[in-house]
Amino acid sequence: MASTEGQVITCKAAVAYEPNKPLVIEDVQVAPPQAGEVRIKILFTALCHTDAYTWSGKDPEGLFPCILGHEAAGIVESVGEGVSEVKPGDHVIPCYQAECRECKFCKSGKTNLCGKVRAATGVGIMMNDRKTRFSINGKPIYHFMGTSTFSQYSVVHDVSVAKIDPSAPLEKVCLLGCGVPTGLGAVWNTAKVEPGSIVAVFGLGTVGLAVAEGAKAAGASRIIGIDIDNNKFKRAKDFGVTEFINPKDHEKPIQQVIVDQTDGGVDYSFECIGNVSVMRAALECCHKGWGTSVIVGVAASGQEISTRPFQLVTGRVWKGTAFGGFKSRSQVPWLVDKYMKKEIKVDEYITHNLTLGEINKAFDLMHEGGCLRCVLTMH
Amino acid sequence: MASTEGQVITCKAAVAYEPNKPLVIEDVQVAPPQAGEVRIKILFTALCHTDAYTWSGKDPEGLFPCILGHEAAGIVESVGEGVSEVKPGDHVIPCYQAECRECKFCKSGKTNLCGKVRAATGVGIMMNDRKTRFSINGKPIYHFMGTSTFSQYSVVHDVSVAKIDPSAPLEKVCLLGCGVPTGLGAVWNTAKVEPGSIVAVFGLGTVGLAVAEGAKAAGASRIIGIDIDNNKFKRAKDFGVTEFINPKDHEKPIQQVIVDQTDGGVDYSFECIGNVSVMRAALECCHKGWGTSVIVGVAASGQEISTRPFQLVTGRVWKGTAFGGFKSRSQVPWLVDKYMKKEIKVDEYITHNLTLGEINKAFDLMHEGGCLRCVLTMH
Repeated sequence: MASTEGQVITCKAAVAYEPNKPLVIEDVQVAPPQAGEVRIKILFTALCHTDAYTWSGKDPEGLFPCILGHEAAGIVESVGEGVSEVKPGDHVIPCYQAECRECKFCKSGKTNLCGKVRAATGVGIMMNDRKTRFSINGKPIYHFMGTSTFSQYSVVHDVSVAKIDPSAPLEKVCLLGCGVPTGLGAVWNTAKVEPGSIVAVFGLGTVGLAVAEGAKAAGASRIIGIDIDNNKFKRAKDFGVTEFINPKDHEKPIQQVIVDQTDGGVDYSFECIGNVSVMRAALECCHKGWGTSVIVGVAASGQEISTRPFQLVTGRVWKGTAFGGFKSRSQVPWLVDKYMKKEIKVDEYITHNLTLGEINKAFDLMHEGGCLRCVLTMH
Repeated sequence: MASTEGQVITCKAAVAYEPNKPLVIEDVQVAPPQAGEVRIKILFTALCHTDAYTWSGKDPEGLFPCILGHEAAGIVESVGEGVSEVKPGDHVIPCYQAECRECKFCKSGKTNLCGKVRAATGVGIMMNDRKTRFSINGKPIYHFMGTSTFSQYSVVHDVSVAKIDPSAPLEKVCLLGCGVPTGLGAVWNTAKVEPGSIVAVFGLGTVGLAVAEGAKAAGASRIIGIDIDNNKFKRAKDFGVTEFINPKDHEKPIQQVIVDQTDGGVDYSFECIGNVSVMRAALECCHKGWGTSVIVGVAASGQEISTRPFQLVTGRVWKGTAFGGFKSRSQVPWLVDKYMKKEIKVDEYITHNLTLGEINKAFDLMHEGGCLRCVLTMH
């Protein structure tokens, strides 16, 4: 691998030129990593709804042309000046949520958000020179979420790289870059669900199933799955869901249905869809006095949540979570270890496997209820 | 006092016959306490904005004619069958927030709300026979908040009576029935403010000043008071407010002003007005990653709070509090003791003293910025 160090690498990547237009597999030039940067050979990437959201054009921060993708695994190809925590050959998971361990956020002990590179990653560039490392014939292509894993090689900030057990199967643990930790962490870190709790999970996709799995591990006594697709219940049982409610089967608002079935409401609820009406229902199905609702899904820009303040004054708590509250560089390796010890599921979320060249088909699959995660082989 | 036991007492009370019409001082008949009830000779009562809210007719649960009032102190006149925790002669504070120690809420360890008598107090009656104990010439007068302290005698449920140190001055500690504990508890119980925190308090009335006092006691490093009345700052300093912002002095939204002045936002904010727009500002002035906003004020019925879910997904927490999270029967006596040890202020909130007969004047005073609490002498 040393042969490419310091050189521009030309490789395949899926480029999003315009919102909603099919991605185009192009030969892109990937510049060498600068100070504090890491160039990663991406071996496997999954697709997540945030990729689809930005691709759709609804994300006002979306920049085009860009290379999407943020749930992946690979091997370090080379590192820039001053990078000490990873070296070429290390197996890594890129982390869209950085962890610098130095900023106000990292030092607070209260959040997993990190402020160090956000000003750059938020506008699709690298911090060192405020330029991109991707280009096609000299024309820059924007980065995305500081990861851009829909490329065979990507350059990321060193604070955005988690070094993992080299024996872990990268084609599986790539999922630990986003959806699965988000669901598990929403339960373990953000809500802190206790044994015996009654839990409601809105939306039984990957994140919702990971919430169910996390709640089961936390000892929840009832895990109520809510989805408008009845077919999702069977699979959800394997992840811990004990009961299923389809809002379409009821005339009453779903929050009332749940309150009626739980002697006053659930202890914890999780919105894993990104729908602001469902976020309200998730709050309002919580038990008076202590019910806590966690927003996990990402709503479209400009949309707002609302409720009567009485809901909060009578003891409900409204929170949210990003990457499940996990500190990325510190805790993704720990999640990988848990997977290796068979303490958390990963394989079970992978319903499809395709190649980079089939990425547009993979986006289509995301809209099918049967698809959880589609993993792309990149080389 | 034994002479009145078991008998109907005729005494003076301020009756609210209709929304927004002046209260009328009437001779009312107060029936003896039934099983599980306590008749209290009310000696002092203060006025609170919730009284004014229901009196205004905006409270859809408001019932007329009724006897308002819920922040008071008195002496037990007689008790009904089965009442064991208080006896005639005990000094007490009526508690609109009951504490039965037996219901799901009381046993949860997670809330101070109590479900035992809510179904009765919410509709202005007593639980035992679902009737009122107040009448005028046989015509029933509704109870209010399970307390109805604008009467020289009132009947309350035994779970709504806190027995206090008999040496405490009732003309002062009557305030520990609502506003002061609400503010202190919002800080100590609901937000759990830590030393060094930056705190924002919206609205510098009694509750807001109690928040400031609580925050100072908790070791907050900065306590930012926000009010549209510049005159309130001077007094607020005595309660712990270190900085003052008048939103009218700024073109930018107040949340942005606060974020700019606090390197990203406050650690804790408290809305002590009951204005849903201010509730939003209070949330949005919180620091990303951990800022917690507590709704303390009571908004008018039907009004809704809203924000972008991104505010919560990026780590802010939205909560509310009722009676500051204090368990009433257990903790009001503790607050009285703290007052007796000069650990909390009470006297300083009393700006006016009037008599029951001057109650309409007392309501007028509430709209004046200079008035915090007006205490009425009842006999």
